[in-house]
Amino acid sequence: MSERTGILLVVSGPSGSGKTTLCRLLADSGEVRYSISCTTRPPRPGEENGKDYHFLSKEDFFHRLEAGDFLEHAVVHGNLYGSLKSEVVAHLNAGRDVVMDIDVQGADQIRQCPDADIRRAFLDLFVMPPSEEILHQRLSNRGTDSAEVIALRMHNALEEMRHWRKYGYRLVSTTVEEDFVQGLALITGERLRVSRITDP
Amino acid sequence: MSERTGILLVVSGPSGSGKTTLCRLLADSGEVRYSISCTTRPPRPGEENGKDYHFLSKEDFFHRLEAGDFLEHAVVHGNLYGSLKSEVVAHLNAGRDVVMDIDVQGADQIRQCPDADIRRAFLDLFVMPPSEEILHQRLSNRGTDSAEVIALRMHNALEEMRHWRKYGYRLVSTTVEEDFVQGLALITGERLRVSRITDP
Repeated sequence: MSERTGILLVVSGPSGSGKTTLCRLLADSGEVRYSISCTTRPPRPGEENGKDYHFLSKEDFFHRLEAGDFLEHAVVHGNLYGSLKSEVVAHLNAGRDVVMDIDVQGADQIRQCPDADIRRAFLDLFVMPPSEEILHQRLSNRGTDSAEVIALRMHNALEEMRHWRKYGYRLVSTTVEEDFVQGLALITGERLRVSRITDP
Repeated sequence: MSERTGILLVVSGPSGSGKTTLCRLLADSGEVRYSISCTTRPPRPGEENGKDYHFLSKEDFFHRLEAGDFLEHAVVHGNLYGSLKSEVVAHLNAGRDVVMDIDVQGADQIRQCPDADIRRAFLDLFVMPPSEEILHQRLSNRGTDSAEVIALRMHNALEEMRHWRKYGYRLVSTTVEEDFVQGLALITGERLRVSRITDP
């Protein structure tokens, strides 16, 4: 086995693309660690603190932001989201791979991070829905939102999809199983990357 | 399916590393095309012209070299070896992936190629034997060469292994099956690379 530092797989894509399912499957397979984001939005039914998100008050969030604890942060629909450096760097240095499910703004911030550990680890993947029709179905089928909210989500999704060329890799989602195979192949190949191998 | 240009997977590694077996398995699986090199060395028993190599006379080889037909060429053990551009570029432009089994000198030349098609396609993998002991066994077990030839091969292999850090990716060979899984994962992941996607 080669000694190496970990991969930071940053996954973006619109709501309904399948990116969150992909990240969860990669984490559940034991191949990568899931980086849990912080947010100031209230938990949805079934969401657990420390599992789905670290739910923080706005006061706590700003305190940590001032302390420089965040790798990236963003405002989405009026709520704050961010990823703690401490959540990521310890894993990378121990050779463990980390996956982060973040939006285009957050990925931009990590892409510009000057920290050598983060730059070496960085691997960015954009997940696209199979088609606009299927995206619309997926955003409608949640069954919890009004037509206006669905239309706004669709607008935001199409906006977000314009940014795929900023990413190193792009996956056009097909099925949950095939997306997982593709994502796992990307990580498996990247584990061979010389710039992360620490062997003499 | 995304429209994309092909990958040029350049595989190097010492004799006895398993690189040639890996390249053959990748080609036999139908996932990549094997780029057949030209050589001025005489065919070994069982080798076929146009399958294992294009066997050229020195006169033919120099003629094509002057015409700029080679992507790379090298002198190994007093014989000329080279890869024809025409063998590669047509596949790449049609979105087909190509694997080349070449030495460190040849890989250096391709790495410095100014041609945008080649630069975009380029993906370089160095295959290492599991250990020096196993490398020595493999170089000895061929049973066709004298102790002096084996010692020379071992010396050359260790020399070649010093160059692995020039490559983008490194595979430490374990078993034929596992090497294939790793090599296929590398290609599968690379097919998602945005810089080769030609979608609008």
